[in-house]
Amino acid sequence: MFTEEYFMKQAYKEAEKAFEEGEVPVGAIIVSDNQIIAKAHNQTELLNDVTAHAEIVAITAASEYLGTKYLSECTMYVTLEPCIMCAGALYWAQLGKLVFGASDEKRGFFRYGRELLHPKTTVLQGALETECSALLKSFFAARR
Amino acid sequence: MFTEEYFMKQAYKEAEKAFEEGEVPVGAIIVSDNQIIAKAHNQTELLNDVTAHAEIVAITAASEYLGTKYLSECTMYVTLEPCIMCAGALYWAQLGKLVFGASDEKRGFFRYGRELLHPKTTVLQGALETECSALLKSFFAARR
Repeated sequence: MFTEEYFMKQAYKEAEKAFEEGEVPVGAIIVSDNQIIAKAHNQTELLNDVTAHAEIVAITAASEYLGTKYLSECTMYVTLEPCIMCAGALYWAQLGKLVFGASDEKRGFFRYGRELLHPKTTVLQGALETECSALLKSFFAARR
Repeated sequence: MFTEEYFMKQAYKEAEKAFEEGEVPVGAIIVSDNQIIAKAHNQTELLNDVTAHAEIVAITAASEYLGTKYLSECTMYVTLEPCIMCAGALYWAQLGKLVFGASDEKRGFFRYGRELLHPKTTVLQGALETECSALLKSFFAARR
């Protein structure tokens, strides 16, 4: 049951919530020992705050839950390749593993290289990519 | 009165608060129309949250105050060169002007280039650099 796909679907459900709220549809969850300890979706519009990306909100929630600012035993599942800001936050959190869905050629951190993340962070990309990408495209198409 | 030095000293006072609280001493303020609309210092230890850098806390507070997530008419004064995470946040906020004190060769955003910030953001570095840098050195020296 606890497959990469299962967890990515939970992140996707968070992205759907963002979509329904008129937010750029990105969702993230953080898993520790096969347990989801944080769920979040993009809330930049609701909060009028550029820092309220799904990843940042999830990191804050997971740190609160664990009582530590280091997430080296955790995996983050996020529907879109993190931006520079979020990659920087994941660096400081020393995230154990990052799994992301859709790529973001324009604003994704990979443009600046994998070393934006902590050396200990393993990365898996392309999980549920088609669905994650389709949700984003559908969102932006509706706004044009 | 409303000189770069005056505002940088207010950011420095925030850094001193962080120092007193056992946090890495970094302070930031955000100014709009010569008025300070946000003051913050690093609170990563207190909040157990890697995202609680002075800049992130200040951006959230300024956006709340202005009721908009864009800070294109604002100047941020921060005692240390922002990291990747904070530069990424300042990009999304489309900050008008960034003034920083001490440089951070290891973790500062300049390592990856000025383009991590928004093209509209002007940058002034080295304001009150000696004091800002001395406070950081004093903090780390006491911890060795």
